[in-house]
Amino acid sequence: MKSNRLTLKCLEEIVHEALNNHEGDTANYIPELANVNKELTAIAVQSFGEEMLVYSNDPLELVTLQSTGKLIPLIGLLEENGPDQLFEWVKVEPSGDEFSSITRLEQLGPKPSNPMLNAGAIMLCSHIPGVGEQQFGWLQKWTQKLFNCRLSVNPLVFSSEKRTGDRNRALAYLLHSRGILGTNVYETLDLYFTLCSYETLLDQMLYLPCLLANYGKDPVTDKQIISMETCKITLAIMATCGLYDETGTHMVNTGMPAKSGVSGYTIAVVPGKAGVAVLSPRVNAKGNSIRGEIMLKSLSERMNWHFALP
Amino acid sequence: MKSNRLTLKCLEEIVHEALNNHEGDTANYIPELANVNKELTAIAVQSFGEEMLVYSNDPLELVTLQSTGKLIPLIGLLEENGPDQLFEWVKVEPSGDEFSSITRLEQLGPKPSNPMLNAGAIMLCSHIPGVGEQQFGWLQKWTQKLFNCRLSVNPLVFSSEKRTGDRNRALAYLLHSRGILGTNVYETLDLYFTLCSYETLLDQMLYLPCLLANYGKDPVTDKQIISMETCKITLAIMATCGLYDETGTHMVNTGMPAKSGVSGYTIAVVPGKAGVAVLSPRVNAKGNSIRGEIMLKSLSERMNWHFALP
Amino acid sequence: MKSNRLTLKCLEEIVHEALNNHEGDTANYIPELANVNKELTAIAVQSFGEEMLVYSNDPLELVTLQSTGKLIPLIGLLEENGPDQLFEWVKVEPSGDEFSSITRLEQLGPKPSNPMLNAGAIMLCSHIPGVGEQQFGWLQKWTQKLFNCRLSVNPLVFSSEKRTGDRNRALAYLLHSRGILGTNVYETLDLYFTLCSYETLLDQMLYLPCLLANYGKDPVTDKQIISMETCKITLAIMATCGLYDETGTHMVNTGMPAKSGVSGYTIAVVPGKAGVAVLSPRVNAKGNSIRGEIMLKSLSERMNWHFALP
Amino acid sequence: MKSNRLTLKCLEEIVHEALNNHEGDTANYIPELANVNKELTAIAVQSFGEEMLVYSNDPLELVTLQSTGKLIPLIGLLEENGPDQLFEWVKVEPSGDEFSSITRLEQLGPKPSNPMLNAGAIMLCSHIPGVGEQQFGWLQKWTQKLFNCRLSVNPLVFSSEKRTGDRNRALAYLLHSRGILGTNVYETLDLYFTLCSYETLLDQMLYLPCLLANYGKDPVTDKQIISMETCKITLAIMATCGLYDETGTHMVNTGMPAKSGVSGYTIAVVPGKAGVAVLSPRVNAKGNSIRGEIMLKSLSERMNWHFALP
Repeated sequence: MKSNRLTLKCLEEIVHEALNNHEGDTANYIPELANVNKELTAIAVQSFGEEMLVYSNDPLELVTLQSTGKLIPLIGLLEENGPDQLFEWVKVEPSGDEFSSITRLEQLGPKPSNPMLNAGAIMLCSHIPGVGEQQFGWLQKWTQKLFNCRLSVNPLVFSSEKRTGDRNRALAYLLHSRGILGTNVYETLDLYFTLCSYETLLDQMLYLPCLLANYGKDPVTDKQIISMETCKITLAIMATCGLYDETGTHMVNTGMPAKSGVSGYTIAVVPGKAGVAVLSPRVNAKGNSIRGEIMLKSLSERMNWHFALP
Repeated sequence: MKSNRLTLKCLEEIVHEALNNHEGDTANYIPELANVNKELTAIAVQSFGEEMLVYSNDPLELVTLQSTGKLIPLIGLLEENGPDQLFEWVKVEPSGDEFSSITRLEQLGPKPSNPMLNAGAIMLCSHIPGVGEQQFGWLQKWTQKLFNCRLSVNPLVFSSEKRTGDRNRALAYLLHSRGILGTNVYETLDLYFTLCSYETLLDQMLYLPCLLANYGKDPVTDKQIISMETCKITLAIMATCGLYDETGTHMVNTGMPAKSGVSGYTIAVVPGKAGVAVLSPRVNAKGNSIRGEIMLKSLSERMNWHFALP
Repeated sequence: MKSNRLTLKCLEEIVHEALNNHEGDTANYIPELANVNKELTAIAVQSFGEEMLVYSNDPLELVTLQSTGKLIPLIGLLEENGPDQLFEWVKVEPSGDEFSSITRLEQLGPKPSNPMLNAGAIMLCSHIPGVGEQQFGWLQKWTQKLFNCRLSVNPLVFSSEKRTGDRNRALAYLLHSRGILGTNVYETLDLYFTLCSYETLLDQMLYLPCLLANYGKDPVTDKQIISMETCKITLAIMATCGLYDETGTHMVNTGMPAKSGVSGYTIAVVPGKAGVAVLSPRVNAKGNSIRGEIMLKSLSERMNWHFALP
Repeated sequence: MKSNRLTLKCLEEIVHEALNNHEGDTANYIPELANVNKELTAIAVQSFGEEMLVYSNDPLELVTLQSTGKLIPLIGLLEENGPDQLFEWVKVEPSGDEFSSITRLEQLGPKPSNPMLNAGAIMLCSHIPGVGEQQFGWLQKWTQKLFNCRLSVNPLVFSSEKRTGDRNRALAYLLHSRGILGTNVYETLDLYFTLCSYETLLDQMLYLPCLLANYGKDPVTDKQIISMETCKITLAIMATCGLYDETGTHMVNTGMPAKSGVSGYTIAVVPGKAGVAVLSPRVNAKGNSIRGEIMLKSLSERMNWHFALP
């Protein structure tokens, strides 16, 4: 059995399949997230050795990274500080609880359970090297490296995150009370909210999953951008924690390590074969895009991409 | 970059590397598990297209399946009843808690979080079709199918499990109080203890991970033994829940979906490439073989088998 | 300010006040509890130095003790084994969770949080001295002593409890898995279900709270039946744990240490002044009689009995 | 049996009994609390109709209220806003967890479990009427009323609390994220830290428990300072939640509703009979004074003050 060849027609079918589902909505705890076309449903795939395919029901818009951005400090710190240092800051275990759970941080702490939870990403942001502008510069540098272009921060979303970010402040203060936060709470959260507020178009989202699928090499130039070691760790964390307490279901359905964001993006990796990005702003109570999961499941089945099965 | 060719010499090095670690011990809550050579440290690998390799520091012994046996009702019920029915009995999410946690069953229930936890496996045992002997026959049939040979139950371990199985009784009664157990508590637990008490030699353990790595086909005859669909789901569950609340760490270290047992066995899958079984009875507090994990990590690194990376 | 003199007229008003509330129902997890007149609403009060007063809207019926019976092993074991021994079996802290919570037993264990929770009462039943019939005899003896008459066990309720008692079995097995249960699970639960299934009329319920209010002396003969020390400990446990996770609200409303049962009985104590028993089978989700609490609050206010305030 | 007459000799014996215990230490999470004579061990008792007795092993010092101050917003808001309003802000149930638990606030919320926990007191501080200086004025007014003298804030302790108060910030932000905090997080915490940092001498601590024991009337002038209704509710909350997850043990040992503070003060009430204050800065892991509890237990036994038993 061989992988089928992917066609634009196929992506069109996948999108239309997903459009049948009308559940979910934009996340209400960051009001500014509602300022998008919430019916926008799109998929972009880069199979290695083939051309990039993108299908969207409506014109693409700039949408913020939200939690997909949690990969930036994870990868950047893995590259610069190494895994041993990173694992002193966060564990890499699914917590079984929702993305902003304080209970699990209190009970399973002191370290956050994993870097895909809010607590874990906040922890990592606090350990970005440097002071003040240097930390924001570091973030900018790594964003550029991992998305292969310069991203902007959406100031309305940033402001909306900041205005409604009390739960993240609670997490940050609990971490700070344990003396393990690397930067003060305010600057840490500004870094974290910045991370979440970078915005991109769907096709720009595709570079990162391709990089991870291609063992850290740029799919075009074959230049090693991030190390194989970093790719392995990142894929393992995405496979076990990428969609919070819905990761098991996601892996059963798709077999692709992935990372979701509450804005509606999900990026997924088929190791050695392809990078995938999907977008649909209607998310469920667990913070994952509903149509996004439908598209990834359909794609995985059509292409036999489940765990890179044959 | 290509996968290296595996040699017996390489397995010997892997075993000797692991022998440097002297942490852990046999699990004390099933006293009969101590009746093995606890220094026994062995690995068996079947790369497709090559011959099976086995290296052991000491003579192989019959060792019980323990939780590796949890794959039997999972796979058998997936095959006979289908995934939709199975997912009405158990969820497929890591719980973040230890294998016999009652708290998570009470809080995240009614259904057990996943079929690799005691609660989940007990639940599935209760839904094995038939009555009485038929259920034990079903277990025997599926064990034979998935291990490609007839396994025996170790009566001393069975009796030891039964004598010390109060925590599993507590889980079963909590499930029964919710009216969702398919068989009465006593017979369900006899099925569960039987499952755990099947015993095999290390090389017999290799058939199941090979089957999963080969998309459900017998690696020799290429006959389809279990469906691709069942393989996908099983791999996804192993990748997210196979080593309980140490699965994330295992995936970071090895990138191989796996299932551990408290007797010291761990089986691991490299999709499309190989099946692996390791054995060392010294387990840690989370119920996973310490030397087993060292061997799997070393093997994964030497072979570039992490997420089937190149 | 002096306590008012209580009259039958006053009790009648209290009952009629309570009858306005139609919330709650008999507990559905013990079906046989529904076999009572669920509108029965009654109160009995013995102020010291005055005659006993009883008012009921309907004829009194025999109703089972349910959790009010948890006082029997508590008091009997305090008397025979002393507080130091008792506190090795159970703690005396409110758990903040519901009466049959397993989570708190797992997390705050090994000992149950307090003897008013199911786990705590099961634990105490297992430590009743003797073997088999001797333990049931002990229970009979102490029931007779604390209710000043011979009570019968209602076999239908006993059987109903036993048939639906899986959650209590889960608790008992979790305790047994820790090696701290004094008797095997089966006999322990038979003792526990027996305890719950003793039945009395409302006026017979009054003897125990009077005994506790009178510092352990029979209110008529002034003979010391149980020690002052036992009274103190029992009152403190009732004041902090007597109505499970509604005890704080009960104490705010009434200021009377009390113990409720899911059959609808609540007994309450005004130290030095009076014993009270109320009955109404409509209970809330926390297992406490709704009209019972209304009656106790009204009585406490009318009589200035809150914390024996003046 | 009559209450014995209390003598200074008796208090001396009680203090010396307590001095045998050398466990515990000043709380390390507020460093400034260590700036006291930690061997200071003292008791003050006002039995109604007798003169106030104070015995101390060392000269009395000004010591901060810490959590004993949580009674101030509770009583003040009960008086000014009434119980119905108060119970919309906090529940009155013991949580079973420690005083600064975030888990229980997340799980049992949105409202804090009771006003004696940090979360509950922070919540009440946020609902002190007025804005800015008015709120601090309100606190000053009620402190003066309930301690019958003007107390000062210890600026070193206030600053120490503020510097190390991250866990309280986490609680406040979690409350704020639910939209139920009445004032912004910063000002709320300044009020809360102020409350904790008022300082008094032991004999000044005695006025409040006497007020509560005397049904809200000044023990000397007999003027009604706070209402009977407020006394009832406050006593009930002290009896069930006053020493956090050690309240049950405290009530078993003493039978006196009480409130502890991590600085070493505990105040206790014998309704209708006496007010008590004890001080010893060595506290246990639960934040309660170890010698303080020894003194209260001994006093209760000597005076038969357990639940105002005879």
